[in-house]
Amino acid sequence: MSKVTCDIAVSLDGYVAGPNQSLENPLGEGVEELLHAWMFDEPDENRAELDAIVDAGAFIMGRNMFGPIRGEWTGDWNGWWGDEPPYHAPVFVLTHFERPVLEMEGGTSFTFVTEGIESGLDRAREAAGAEDIAIAGGAETIRQYLNAGAIDELRLHVVPELIGAGERLLDGVRGVRFETVSTRSNHLVTHMNLRVVR
Amino acid sequence: MSKVTCDIAVSLDGYVAGPNQSLENPLGEGVEELLHAWMFDEPDENRAELDAIVDAGAFIMGRNMFGPIRGEWTGDWNGWWGDEPPYHAPVFVLTHFERPVLEMEGGTSFTFVTEGIESGLDRAREAAGAEDIAIAGGAETIRQYLNAGAIDELRLHVVPELIGAGERLLDGVRGVRFETVSTRSNHLVTHMNLRVVR
Repeated sequence: MSKVTCDIAVSLDGYVAGPNQSLENPLGEGVEELLHAWMFDEPDENRAELDAIVDAGAFIMGRNMFGPIRGEWTGDWNGWWGDEPPYHAPVFVLTHFERPVLEMEGGTSFTFVTEGIESGLDRAREAAGAEDIAIAGGAETIRQYLNAGAIDELRLHVVPELIGAGERLLDGVRGVRFETVSTRSNHLVTHMNLRVVR
Repeated sequence: MSKVTCDIAVSLDGYVAGPNQSLENPLGEGVEELLHAWMFDEPDENRAELDAIVDAGAFIMGRNMFGPIRGEWTGDWNGWWGDEPPYHAPVFVLTHFERPVLEMEGGTSFTFVTEGIESGLDRAREAAGAEDIAIAGGAETIRQYLNAGAIDELRLHVVPELIGAGERLLDGVRGVRFETVSTRSNHLVTHMNLRVVR
């Protein structure tokens, strides 16, 4: 059966973003390099986990993950990922502001959902069919779906670094119980696959 | 060569103790059961890690881990562990108040060190000889030794539970970099073995 998954990189002290977030450093100064070194420096050693991140029939993301623009849509911001984003599937962007569907190369489309997280999940589920649905981030969107009991599998990629300040993934998540399904590590990251217990 | 190790159980959201700590619930209400279920409910599945916790030639602990008494030593508090504590080796207790050495059954002794963490480590090193030295806790003592650059190996036993409030292990630890050595998990716990990078 199709399940709802979520992948996110987190520091040993629980942070998914540091202080001083900006357009140049969406995760905060120096934090992207810390949290995603395993992706960029050792992709072969982490191939299975990297492939799993984009192995879904539909994706959901918060507006802040799609881009730094706030308020009404202006200009031509089409995401961080260039002409051919790595999703190759429908992506549903949660926003308060309407915007027509954006078709990208390689099968990715961005659909802007203004009716809330439940509607976003319904539409993603319809688009995904028998395939999984991935909550792509950011942290606030993941927390909302965790608290709504909508996530089946949380895959934390724990990086052995201390960030010390910023945004923690699990602050404000309540009443969710997990079970460890599997763990795999190399020196840059520990992949923890957790199942939400119902 | 002899190394300085440290084992501690931590929740998925980074807590080593919850709110409302008391004599009956030294880690806070209900937290002992959450953080140590893997020890008590499935010791066989976690045998290697449990054995490693007490496999040291000397131990160091903070006064709060030794007992709930504050100020001058009064009465006959001899630790939480009964007549035969599980250490079977010299244990150095960091305190501001002098007290004679306490000899227990099975080779455990408690020596009360009033000259600070460096002196505690020196004395433990001398007692341990070629064997490892284990920083047994609590969190504040571990943080002090981490910040002093004295720990070689941090073994986190990550329990897939959210505690949501209380004391976090790594809050206030700065400038320490880790490397993941190994990871092993079952459904109650993920054992993360981290080496401090010099």
